Amino acid sequence: MYRSHTCGELRVSHVGETVTLAGWVAKSRVMGSSMAFVDIRDRYGITQLAFNEAYSKELLEKASTLGREFVIQATGKVAERSAKNGQLETGDIEIVVESLTILNESKTPPFTIEAETDGGDDIRMQYRYLDLRRDVVRKNLELRHNLAQSIRAYLSNQQFLEVETPVLIKSTPEGARDFVVPSRMNKGQWYALPQSPQTFKQLLMVSGFDRYFQIVKCFRDEDLRADRQPEFTQIDCEMSFVEREDIIQTFEGMMKQLFADVKGITFGDFPRMSYADAMKYYGSDKPDIRFGMPFVELKAPGNSLDVVSGKDFVVFDNAEAVVGICATGAAVYTRKQIDALIEYVKRPQIGATGIIYCRVEADGSLKSSVDKFYDADALLKWKEAMNAQPGDLMLIMAGGLDKTRKQLNELRLFVGSDLGLRNPHDFKPLWVVDFPLLEWDEDHNRFHAMHHPFTSPLPEDRELMTYDPGKVRANAYDLVINGVEIGGGSIRIFDKQLQSEMFDLLGFTKEDAQYQFGFLMNAFEYGAPPHGGLALGFDRLCSMLGCSDSIRDFIAFPKNNSGRDVMIDAPSTLSAAQLKELEL
Amino acid sequence: MYRSHTCGELRVSHVGETVTLAGWVAKSRVMGSSMAFVDIRDRYGITQLAFNEAYSKELLEKASTLGREFVIQATGKVAERSAKNGQLETGDIEIVVESLTILNESKTPPFTIEAETDGGDDIRMQYRYLDLRRDVVRKNLELRHNLAQSIRAYLSNQQFLEVETPVLIKSTPEGARDFVVPSRMNKGQWYALPQSPQTFKQLLMVSGFDRYFQIVKCFRDEDLRADRQPEFTQIDCEMSFVEREDIIQTFEGMMKQLFADVKGITFGDFPRMSYADAMKYYGSDKPDIRFGMPFVELKAPGNSLDVVSGKDFVVFDNAEAVVGICATGAAVYTRKQIDALIEYVKRPQIGATGIIYCRVEADGSLKSSVDKFYDADALLKWKEAMNAQPGDLMLIMAGGLDKTRKQLNELRLFVGSDLGLRNPHDFKPLWVVDFPLLEWDEDHNRFHAMHHPFTSPLPEDRELMTYDPGKVRANAYDLVINGVEIGGGSIRIFDKQLQSEMFDLLGFTKEDAQYQFGFLMNAFEYGAPPHGGLALGFDRLCSMLGCSDSIRDFIAFPKNNSGRDVMIDAPSTLSAAQLKELEL
Repeated sequence: MYRSHTCGELRVSHVGETVTLAGWVAKSRVMGSSMAFVDIRDRYGITQLAFNEAYSKELLEKASTLGREFVIQATGKVAERSAKNGQLETGDIEIVVESLTILNESKTPPFTIEAETDGGDDIRMQYRYLDLRRDVVRKNLELRHNLAQSIRAYLSNQQFLEVETPVLIKSTPEGARDFVVPSRMNKGQWYALPQSPQTFKQLLMVSGFDRYFQIVKCFRDEDLRADRQPEFTQIDCEMSFVEREDIIQTFEGMMKQLFADVKGITFGDFPRMSYADAMKYYGSDKPDIRFGMPFVELKAPGNSLDVVSGKDFVVFDNAEAVVGICATGAAVYTRKQIDALIEYVKRPQIGATGIIYCRVEADGSLKSSVDKFYDADALLKWKEAMNAQPGDLMLIMAGGLDKTRKQLNELRLFVGSDLGLRNPHDFKPLWVVDFPLLEWDEDHNRFHAMHHPFTSPLPEDRELMTYDPGKVRANAYDLVINGVEIGGGSIRIFDKQLQSEMFDLLGFTKEDAQYQFGFLMNAFEYGAPPHGGLALGFDRLCSMLGCSDSIRDFIAFPKNNSGRDVMIDAPSTLSAAQLKELEL
Repeated sequence: MYRSHTCGELRVSHVGETVTLAGWVAKSRVMGSSMAFVDIRDRYGITQLAFNEAYSKELLEKASTLGREFVIQATGKVAERSAKNGQLETGDIEIVVESLTILNESKTPPFTIEAETDGGDDIRMQYRYLDLRRDVVRKNLELRHNLAQSIRAYLSNQQFLEVETPVLIKSTPEGARDFVVPSRMNKGQWYALPQSPQTFKQLLMVSGFDRYFQIVKCFRDEDLRADRQPEFTQIDCEMSFVEREDIIQTFEGMMKQLFADVKGITFGDFPRMSYADAMKYYGSDKPDIRFGMPFVELKAPGNSLDVVSGKDFVVFDNAEAVVGICATGAAVYTRKQIDALIEYVKRPQIGATGIIYCRVEADGSLKSSVDKFYDADALLKWKEAMNAQPGDLMLIMAGGLDKTRKQLNELRLFVGSDLGLRNPHDFKPLWVVDFPLLEWDEDHNRFHAMHHPFTSPLPEDRELMTYDPGKVRANAYDLVINGVEIGGGSIRIFDKQLQSEMFDLLGFTKEDAQYQFGFLMNAFEYGAPPHGGLALGFDRLCSMLGCSDSIRDFIAFPKNNSGRDVMIDAPSTLSAAQLKELEL
C-alpha cells in the first residue's frame, strides 16, 4: 500500500504520528523562499502538506516543482495547525513532510478540478475522467452506489431474489426501436438488446421465483431528447400472489427506506391520486404536489357550475372548458411579469393563445384583464369558485378541455418555480393509480396499451372490456415524485382468456401474438400465478435524490444527444475483416 | 396478498391457526372415496393439504380434479399430522382445507418438476421456465443471489464503489471477437459490447475513484465450446495506490467471507505458487491441489539428476524430459486399469504415445513395464526420486518438456478423479503468481501480452524489458480453486514510458496504439495513480460453490452451444423495415 491513511481521515488525535499519504496535488502555495503548502487530494478528502526551509531546503525545492494534478506520495508527522481551516474535515492538522515522491506527473488539465469548474459541457465530456475527479461529480456516483446497496438490502430482506436476465434476446417490433446485434454463428439472424426484462421477469414468476429484482441496463434506440440515454438502468421487480396494494406497500416501504438511509428523511404514507383526478386538478398524470394551486374548473363539460358564460366574452363562451389556478400571493406580479407568463404559454411547445387574469387586491377588490365583460359581482363568483384570498392572482385559460389542461399544467409549473415553491430538496412522492387501460390511436384507428399488453384491468372493470373497452381502468400504478415519473407497473394478466381478449382489442392477429409473445403465452399454459410488478428508472431516481435535473450527472460515462461517447469516440467504423465475418 | 403464509413456514406451533396458502400442486393422492392429500409447493417449501369426506364432500371432489402444476389457493386450519414426514420441514403439520380456489390450470408439463426429472437437456432448455421451477435449479440461482449480495457487502465495507460502465462502447480489434451493434443515428458506425470493462475501470482510477467494483455482463463472440456463454458475468474490481500484496489480501479476504457466508467454510491463508513451479510440479497454470502427486523430473533440461538415461531405452534416452507422478495406493491397479490410463492419454486431445509404469509391491519390490531395460537397482533410483512407498504406482511420461508436462497434467487429473481425490465439496484455493509477461507467437514472429497490454512487469524484472523481454515476469496473479481459474488480474502500467515500451514489444505502431487505446493513454497524461485489480468469473464461481461443473445450471436463461436461446428462439430474423432503417 502506498499510504497509511487516506487524505480524509487525519484529525488532531493523530498529532505526532508518522503517516504516509498518496493523492493528487489540488493546490500548492509557495510562501516566499522559506515555506510551501501543498493540498493533497484523494476520494476521501484533502490534507495540507507543509514544507519549510528550516526542516529541509531540498524538500521545499522539490515541493515547489509540483504541478496541479501531479500524483504524489508524502511521509511526515501529523502536526496541529496554528491557523485552522474550518472548511476542511482535516483542517485542524497538517503533515510536516519528511519525504516526498512524485509517483506521476500531469499535464495541466484542460479545466480546473473544482466544484465550480471553468470547463464547458463538451470539454468535460471529452475528458470525463478528469470531470469525474471533481468532488461534485464523484459525490453523485457515491450517492448512486449508496442507493444501489440500500435497494438491494431492502429487497433481499423482503425475500426478493436478484436474477440476471439475458442481454442478447429477441427483437419484438412492438414498442420502441430495438438495438440489434448480428449473430455471426447464425447468419442472417439478429439478437436484440432488451428494452426491459419484462417477459423474462414474468417467466420467472411462472417459474415460481415468487419475488424477483434486478438493477439492470436497458436499451432503446430512440431519437434522443435532452437527458435521454440510449442505455439506461432500471430497478426491475416482480412479485407473485399479490394484489396492487401489496406492491404499493412493498415499494413505498422501499422508497421510505432509501430516503431514510441516504437522505435521512422520513415519510408518512404516500398519498394516492386517480389518473382522472390528476388530470382534472393538475392537467398531468405526474403532478408536482410540492405546492398547491390545483385547477378550478370555472366551466367544463359535465359540470353544473359555470361562472364565466353568458357575459358576451366569446373566448369563454366558445370554449369547451375554462380552467384556472389561484397563484397565492402573486397579486403583486407586475404587468411585465404577467406578460412574461403569457409569452411563456404562447411558445409553440405549449401553444396557448393567452391567459386571462384577475388580481385580488389587499382590500379584497378584484381587478381582471376582462373587466370590460365581467363586473365586480361576476368576478366575485370566480373568486369564490377558486377560493382566492387578498393578495392572490387568478390565472385562467380556456379552450378544449384536454388541451387547456395540458397548457395550464405548464403554466402552473412555471408559476410554481417562479414563486420558489419547487425546492429540489423538498420531496413529495405520490402514487397515481387507475390509469386507462387503453389509449385510442386516431391515426391507426385502433387501441394501444397505455402501459403494455400484459397489464390487467381493474377487477371491477373486467366486464367493461366487452362493451366499453375505452372506459376500462388498468390495475396499474405510477410512482411520481415532485412531478417526475420515477416508475410504474401493474398487476399482470395471468389468465389466457383475458390475455387473448386483450390482444384482440389491440388488433393483434393470433399469428402476430404467437410470433411476438408465443413463448410467454405458452408459459402461461403451465400454471401462471397471479403476479405484478414495477420498474423504476434508476438514473432518474439518483438525480432526484441528488436534487438535480440532469441524469447525465449521475452516470459515470454518459452519451451525448447523438448517442455518442465523445471520450472513447464511439460508435466508430469497423474493420473490413469484421464486416466480412458478419457477412453484412 | 393471496396467502397468509408461504408453503415453507408452518410448524407445530401454528396448530389451530387458520391460514391461507397459494402455490402449485406438486402431487395429489386420492385415498379411496373418503380422503385426499394434495402437496402444495412454492419457492419456500411444500405443505400438505388434507381433504376429507366427513368435512366436505364438495371440497374433496374439487380436490380430486386438481392436476399437476395447477395454481391453487387454499384456506384451512393447521393440524398436527398423525403420520409425520421427516423429509419435509413442514412435515409435522397439514392444513385441513376449508376452501379451495383454482387460480390457474396447467397443461401437463413435458417433464416432471422434481429433483430427478425425466426431461432431457433440450426439452428442459426449451421449457426453461418449468425447469427453473425445479428445486435443484432454483437453489442454484438462490446461491447466486446470496453470493452476489455477500460480494457487494464485503466490497462496500472495504470502500469499493459500484460504478456502472457503459455497454455500448467501441470495438477494438485486439483480443477476442466483439459483438457489434449498428448505430442508426451515426450511419456506418458501430458500437461494440464490452468483453470486459478493463479500460473504463482504469479510467476510474485516473479519476480518483480509488476502489471500484461491478458485477457486470461481458460479451465475447467466440465459437462456443461446451460451457462457454456468449454473455457472461464478471466480478470486476480495481484499486489505486496498491501493490500486488494489497490486492491479494483484499480478494483473499473476500473469498474467505464468501465461503463463510454461503458455505460455512473457513480457510487459513491461501497458498501461493509461482507459474514456474505450477508448470514444473503440475504441468498446468491452474493446478488442482486437492490432492498431491506432484511431478517428479527423472530427467529434464538443466537438471543434474538423471535416473533414466544410458540404459538403452531409447524412448527415455531420446526424450528431452522424463517426468512422473506417484499414484498413492494405486499399485493394485490391474493391467486393464492401466491400459485404460494409456488409452486415455493416447486420445487425440492429449496425444501422448504411452505411459511407462512401475509398481511398488507391498514387500517393496519393484515391477515396471520396462524391466527389460531397468534392473532392480535402476528402478530403486526412480523410487527414491519419487519417494514412492509400498502400494504406490509410478506413472511416467517422456518427450519434449512442455508437451510432456501438459500430457502428464491430464493423466494426473484423471488418476486423481479415479482415486476419488477430487471431491467437489472440498475446496482448495491457490494464488498462482509470477506469470511470464509476454508470450512468443511463433506464427506471427512477435510477442503477445499473456494477460493484456496494461499488465506491468514485476519491479525487479523491469530492467529485463530491454534485453531479455521473454524472461520478464508479470506483476500478475490468478486465483485458482480446485484446478479451475476463477479469476485473475495484475498491477497495471501507469507510467507512459513503460507503456510505450510495452506497445513497442507487442509490435504496435504508435498509430495503432493511439487508435486503439488513445483515450486511455491520453488519460494517463493527467496524473494516473499506481493501480491494479482483478476480475473473477461470476458464473464459474457460482458453479464452483454449487459443487457443479456446469455453469449453465447457474444461469437463469442460458444459451446453447450455438449461441441460441431456444426458449425465446433468439437470434431471429429482423423485419425488412428494421433493416432498412439501419441501412444495412
